[in-house]
Amino acid sequence: MRVAIPLYPRFTALDAVGPYTVMAFAPDCTVTFVAAEPGPVTDDQGTLALTATASYADLPDPDVIVVPGGPGTLEALSDEVLIGWIRRAHAHTRWTTSVCSGSLLLGAAGLLDGVKATTHWAILEMLAQFGAEPVSERVVVEGKIVTAAGVSAGIDMALTLLAQASDVETAQAVQLAIEYDPRPPFDCGSPKTAPEGVAERALSLIT
Amino acid sequence: MRVAIPLYPRFTALDAVGPYTVMAFAPDCTVTFVAAEPGPVTDDQGTLALTATASYADLPDPDVIVVPGGPGTLEALSDEVLIGWIRRAHAHTRWTTSVCSGSLLLGAAGLLDGVKATTHWAILEMLAQFGAEPVSERVVVEGKIVTAAGVSAGIDMALTLLAQASDVETAQAVQLAIEYDPRPPFDCGSPKTAPEGVAERALSLIT
Repeated sequence: MRVAIPLYPRFTALDAVGPYTVMAFAPDCTVTFVAAEPGPVTDDQGTLALTATASYADLPDPDVIVVPGGPGTLEALSDEVLIGWIRRAHAHTRWTTSVCSGSLLLGAAGLLDGVKATTHWAILEMLAQFGAEPVSERVVVEGKIVTAAGVSAGIDMALTLLAQASDVETAQAVQLAIEYDPRPPFDCGSPKTAPEGVAERALSLIT
Repeated sequence: MRVAIPLYPRFTALDAVGPYTVMAFAPDCTVTFVAAEPGPVTDDQGTLALTATASYADLPDPDVIVVPGGPGTLEALSDEVLIGWIRRAHAHTRWTTSVCSGSLLLGAAGLLDGVKATTHWAILEMLAQFGAEPVSERVVVEGKIVTAAGVSAGIDMALTLLAQASDVETAQAVQLAIEYDPRPPFDCGSPKTAPEGVAERALSLIT
């Protein structure tokens, strides 16, 4: 299975590296980071660059695409090269997926009209601008469109897809290989459970 | 707080990017990827390069170091430049930390003698070679030495430390910002819970 992860300026690193690590551990899975041109692409903090090893033109027909989110998403909405690649690649994919605000880019490519989808909790209602039906869930599978909630949700999404792409035991083996037995120190990873005031603090960190 | 994450060939990307993303979202935290020389360093899959922006010599006295693991750890045990930097930096740190097999590098630097520590489940007993007391826990805090279990455990470790470095509400805000409300699809992220046969499959993926 050939997986492509597009990188654009000011993406959030964990959005991309979570699903990457899950899928790259799987047998028969090749993950390629792509961008307009090969080379380093800098993340939302300005301190980490991941290297794209191929251009969009090099990989027009991946089996899976995973579009990460990040503060750079809003600017990327008008990146016609990226949006055009997503739209054309989608015609070939088994799954077209996103993490966090990456779903807005699927929307900009015209893929979410009438489709249930999710994104980071802070911008969930923006999905309606693209005709999507916003859903507050961790991972939303609607046919071949699969969207995940904010940042860390891409790990859960990738394991879910891997169980279908390979088999349950392979996905379980990858989960154990990355020792994904999470023990978050607080019960506040969702706005539904976060104590009062934490959502405002979180928004101040991401905007 | 100045955090340094050393990169060496064949590290596991999520080991580094999990704690990075948590800490980089925190206010007053600067995370720098370091290596023997600045430049791209390729991960365990050979398909992802993260760029180190500073050399070890550029950052001799960070407040926190986070040493990632990966298949390259065994070779890195004899990397005297890396091990020497860990040993000297440790004299200045508030916390000296590791994810996954990164703890073996703390051991090689002589930091684990008589210290409780953890690592990836598959190599837990190797810690004893360095005089450490292997402990099967997600995150082990022993004074300023903090070790995390395999790969994904670095996210939990970073949130735990952030609550001490800043305050609980800041750590909660970061946890909500990265929507860390994990929903692993299977209960198999630990060898204690994985169904029979999954550990063998997992070992075949990581060795």
